[in-house]
Amino acid sequence: MFSKSVTHPVATSPVEWATALTSAVPKAPEGYLMTKTLVLKPKTAKTAAVFPVMVIALESTSTNLSALGKKIELKEMRLAAPELLQEFFKCDKDSISPFALKSVSAEAIENVRIVLDSELLASTSPLAFHANASDKTTFVTGAELKAFLESSVFKYTDINFGELAASAPVPAPKAANKTAKPEAKESKEEDAVVKIGIEYKKEDNFPMWYRQVLTKGEMIEYYDVSGCYIYRPWSYSIWRSITAFFDKAITDMGVEPAYFPLFVSQAVLEKEKDHIEGFAPEVAWVTRAGNSELEVPVAIRPTSETVMYPYYAKWIRSYRDLPLRLNQWNSVVRWEFKNPQPFLRTREFLWQEGHTAFLTKKEADDEVLEILDLYRQVYTDLLAVPVIKGVKSEKEKFAGGLYTTTCEGYIPATGRAIQGATSHCLGQNFSKMFNIEVEDPTAEGTKSFVWQNSWGLSTRTIGVMVMVHGDDKGLVLPPRVASVQVVVIPCGLKVSSTEEERLKVEAGVKEVVATLTKAGVRAKADLRENYTPGYKFNHWELRGVPIRLEIGPMDLAKKSTLSVCRHSGAKQAIPLADLPTAIPALLDTIHDDMYSRAKEIFDKNVVRVDEWDKFVPALNNKSLVLMPWCEEVSCEEDIKENSSRSSVGDEPVDEKAPSMGAKSLCIPFEQPTENPIVEGVTKCVACERKAKRFALFGRSY
Amino acid sequence: MFSKSVTHPVATSPVEWATALTSAVPKAPEGYLMTKTLVLKPKTAKTAAVFPVMVIALESTSTNLSALGKKIELKEMRLAAPELLQEFFKCDKDSISPFALKSVSAEAIENVRIVLDSELLASTSPLAFHANASDKTTFVTGAELKAFLESSVFKYTDINFGELAASAPVPAPKAANKTAKPEAKESKEEDAVVKIGIEYKKEDNFPMWYRQVLTKGEMIEYYDVSGCYIYRPWSYSIWRSITAFFDKAITDMGVEPAYFPLFVSQAVLEKEKDHIEGFAPEVAWVTRAGNSELEVPVAIRPTSETVMYPYYAKWIRSYRDLPLRLNQWNSVVRWEFKNPQPFLRTREFLWQEGHTAFLTKKEADDEVLEILDLYRQVYTDLLAVPVIKGVKSEKEKFAGGLYTTTCEGYIPATGRAIQGATSHCLGQNFSKMFNIEVEDPTAEGTKSFVWQNSWGLSTRTIGVMVMVHGDDKGLVLPPRVASVQVVVIPCGLKVSSTEEERLKVEAGVKEVVATLTKAGVRAKADLRENYTPGYKFNHWELRGVPIRLEIGPMDLAKKSTLSVCRHSGAKQAIPLADLPTAIPALLDTIHDDMYSRAKEIFDKNVVRVDEWDKFVPALNNKSLVLMPWCEEVSCEEDIKENSSRSSVGDEPVDEKAPSMGAKSLCIPFEQPTENPIVEGVTKCVACERKAKRFALFGRSY
Repeated sequence: MFSKSVTHPVATSPVEWATALTSAVPKAPEGYLMTKTLVLKPKTAKTAAVFPVMVIALESTSTNLSALGKKIELKEMRLAAPELLQEFFKCDKDSISPFALKSVSAEAIENVRIVLDSELLASTSPLAFHANASDKTTFVTGAELKAFLESSVFKYTDINFGELAASAPVPAPKAANKTAKPEAKESKEEDAVVKIGIEYKKEDNFPMWYRQVLTKGEMIEYYDVSGCYIYRPWSYSIWRSITAFFDKAITDMGVEPAYFPLFVSQAVLEKEKDHIEGFAPEVAWVTRAGNSELEVPVAIRPTSETVMYPYYAKWIRSYRDLPLRLNQWNSVVRWEFKNPQPFLRTREFLWQEGHTAFLTKKEADDEVLEILDLYRQVYTDLLAVPVIKGVKSEKEKFAGGLYTTTCEGYIPATGRAIQGATSHCLGQNFSKMFNIEVEDPTAEGTKSFVWQNSWGLSTRTIGVMVMVHGDDKGLVLPPRVASVQVVVIPCGLKVSSTEEERLKVEAGVKEVVATLTKAGVRAKADLRENYTPGYKFNHWELRGVPIRLEIGPMDLAKKSTLSVCRHSGAKQAIPLADLPTAIPALLDTIHDDMYSRAKEIFDKNVVRVDEWDKFVPALNNKSLVLMPWCEEVSCEEDIKENSSRSSVGDEPVDEKAPSMGAKSLCIPFEQPTENPIVEGVTKCVACERKAKRFALFGRSY
Repeated sequence: MFSKSVTHPVATSPVEWATALTSAVPKAPEGYLMTKTLVLKPKTAKTAAVFPVMVIALESTSTNLSALGKKIELKEMRLAAPELLQEFFKCDKDSISPFALKSVSAEAIENVRIVLDSELLASTSPLAFHANASDKTTFVTGAELKAFLESSVFKYTDINFGELAASAPVPAPKAANKTAKPEAKESKEEDAVVKIGIEYKKEDNFPMWYRQVLTKGEMIEYYDVSGCYIYRPWSYSIWRSITAFFDKAITDMGVEPAYFPLFVSQAVLEKEKDHIEGFAPEVAWVTRAGNSELEVPVAIRPTSETVMYPYYAKWIRSYRDLPLRLNQWNSVVRWEFKNPQPFLRTREFLWQEGHTAFLTKKEADDEVLEILDLYRQVYTDLLAVPVIKGVKSEKEKFAGGLYTTTCEGYIPATGRAIQGATSHCLGQNFSKMFNIEVEDPTAEGTKSFVWQNSWGLSTRTIGVMVMVHGDDKGLVLPPRVASVQVVVIPCGLKVSSTEEERLKVEAGVKEVVATLTKAGVRAKADLRENYTPGYKFNHWELRGVPIRLEIGPMDLAKKSTLSVCRHSGAKQAIPLADLPTAIPALLDTIHDDMYSRAKEIFDKNVVRVDEWDKFVPALNNKSLVLMPWCEEVSCEEDIKENSSRSSVGDEPVDEKAPSMGAKSLCIPFEQPTENPIVEGVTKCVACERKAKRFALFGRSY
């Protein structure tokens, strides 16, 4: 009886569901109507049995609970608690639909009441219901729904909510009002989903803004396996720029390319205990091939330390085999159950992982910093994103390693920090576990375990770039990674323009593109017919192309073109003859501008704090905190606990601000020189123990 | 009590086991001794219970069954059938060890007898036993083994096989001799495993030759998950050369890069029935993450048609969105249960997959051939491997597609063909299934399904290259993909040479490398101390470096260097001043030589056959067959059936030759012009129906 079912990203609100349905697989049928299934609990005597009421209505129907209660003679109906939904329907609020009635146990059937919106039954459009999962939607007609209910053991009451509202002069109680309001707003938002531009303001609704910028900017497509995303050419080409830069740099350093398998055996995966403890809950296991159960399940690599090091032990027979420096570009899988987010938290992600082995700690230490600086360069020199380099605390370092260095970024819109990339010194811990040792050339007859590093940079870089630079019009791409740096658009043609004028402008556009291409600029002409220049401006602004050049008959006459910078809106006429030098220079200027602007905001939001009372207010003000710190694990745990909103009893100004506690981001390499730490005198701001160094704290992704 | 366990590739014979142990993870302990566990069945009355005898001995011990039978008073002992091993020990011959005694059921305990080689008990070396799996080995001492047996309910007889043999003047029966002989040979081979060079001749033992060339040539490391291999830098850099060439070519054609997820939902995977039928038995399923069972298992992509096309349906809204041409470089998983082989048949492999959509069939057809020719170029112009281009038969085409074009290669050593790369036209089949349609711009108001192609090239290319060019000394790398094209080795220094002479030679070597690098040649100096020039020659010959340059005091005096070509052994003096032009020219000559030599052999082995009686003899002569063919599926099935060795009753000359039947490889685009097919007259060589075109048949990988 299910006419059609589709899958889509998990949706936990009507707005999310509406958005999710636009990327459903297969496509949702045309003209469908969204529905809602509410479970209400009327007030009953404490000793009486609970009678849940399931209300099934169109999403657009205003369900006045007070009036409904009067009509069906039940008092003070409230939305039921999650526990009650589970108890009766084995389901949560985001998955429930009339089909959850199948899960009601025999002895509870008598206790469930069903109220049906009469508009729903009358509908001939496909009605969208979650079919017991928040990432699936089934479409049925009103008649099919009716048939389903009538074939079941349940009785239902058919109610016209429109008439009910009209006949209810009594003011609805507060609770009902609260429910009604967001509905009205959300249904407006739902209508807007079909629009071309970005409908959310970055400052107002950052999560939805981010989602739309990525999907409408053609960076990402949501995929029907939750937590996985499609990298479209517009984002993948950025990753290409990053990989090309980094790969050349490490090749010059002497790192060699290799590829190790996707699969790891359980025995090998679990060899290093501390290490695997960090990953175990997120490891995906293949247990079946075709119809055969595998005798021994195999894991998909969450990272490759334990995949690689048994072979390092085999290959490294002598100090002459050192250093061994391998890198691979691959994807790894960490099956996170928390809210996935494109680029930042995904179940599969693309990265590089470098794994190196040295004879001495000195060589390993040097490489850790050399790589970290390449990561810094990716952020600052390619993506125009400022980062702070430093070393992680004991609590935050890579599980099983000796120490971890990091580039920390900052997202102004949420006031949260983000770990940009990490370069770890593993010390001799893994080499001892995997028995990677060589004879020490400086002391004959003695064996020495090798010193190892591992380091990784992922597509998270792209997410940080989008979050830092994007604006209310969409993406703003830093010029060095933009696959199109300049778009050239014909303008100034009128209905009255002659065919000759048109052809002349088109030829002018093509010539400019040819000139720029020759000068090493990635330029593209937008010669699409049937689109106005204005439409094209919006199209490329949404996609973040750094420079737009407009060319019309007047421009050609003046041998000039108007340039418009995406990041600032700045306009400037450029003589055509100057393009080969002016545009590369302008691209560099744009890069520098974007970086400076982001750096200024970052700097302003690193707040130095010298007393604990200022710590949480700084976080709530969307800043990071720099303070003298004792570097004790217990102190870090206390800070986290004491800075979560719940424990400080803070009333958040902005409901969307994260409520989690702060963690240490890094101990910056560049320590403050003004009013520095005086050994033995300066105290830890959090616990009053002796401070060792300044540490950066913040709420974090 | 298991002192140490290791995993390694599956081993089904003592030789394989010995080889496998050299790549065990973790490393096998030093000085271990291999063992054997034989299960014998003595002759008993038909009605009597079966008494299996388990003989546990050193692999090197000669176990004379006849003498043993006399000693323990059992008659005519033979190696037990697999069924009996399963029944008693739940295990096969390649997995059995004393530890399988744990699997003996309580009621069978009394029936099992155990004989122990006394040398084994006396051993203090680690003894290698398969621990219930042919890809695992456990090492225990004799004392530990004894302890294990004594802690069990089993009794054992301790026998000195050496004394037994001496005290047995009776000639051993034939059966026992047969067992003894290969053992002697194998144990010799086992000793040889530690040698540096390739110990197998390409013509004598091709599988072991291939294995050693890859492992000793540092292309591949065997991995502890069967069917997966590690690509070491020496092979991965070849893949890099191939990807760089191909990626540039398709980018120039207008194909864009993208990345789609590793995971596919079951619903989407199974959308196209014909297509999934071809892959279903090999699909790997993730059913668990951490400790949680997934509600809905997800598949790992075996290829991405069904991953991608739902989104093509979404993205392609108008003919203006066409063509859509995406390519991704990724890895796919096909969990094959047949014998895995590095590069050729692996459970995970690296490839590119291009997926394109066009408005018209013409555009799709053109692209199919354009891509196929790029694949041809990868083989002929980069790898110096000849291929034949053509179209696949209906039976052999891509499941769900319209037609498949292919580059077919040939491995002379086995006489088998190999599919090099395929470019498919999918027609409108997938676009109909996934509803990818646009309004036809030429006929307003009518909808048209798009025309699609998919095409892929994998790391199989590298395997073909190794098989075609490698020789008894090891790899022979075609110069254009070799990561080191020229190795420069200091020579002619004697014990009596002065330090000054040494330094001068070293400086000369470095200068040559610098000169070549500047000329765009990938050159490397081998200045390792403690190794003789001869050792270095072998080292680089094994790894297949195309040119070796020798530089000694005499050469420097003559301002000359001796060049040695890997593929031919040809030596030639080259004036140092000529190097920047002479070496690039020589590299091209080497490429051409390698290609011509391989082409000549290929051509010689494409045998035109005009009567069926000559078909199988040609195959058995390691050739491929070109013949007029009707192109009927039933005829192809008959040919396969009638050309397998078993059905033709053929006694193979070479035991290692494949016995499978022939399949059609392709209908070559280039059809013979001499004595061509006359329509309506020429008959199919196999079935006497009318012949349509010449087709190429052969035994194939």
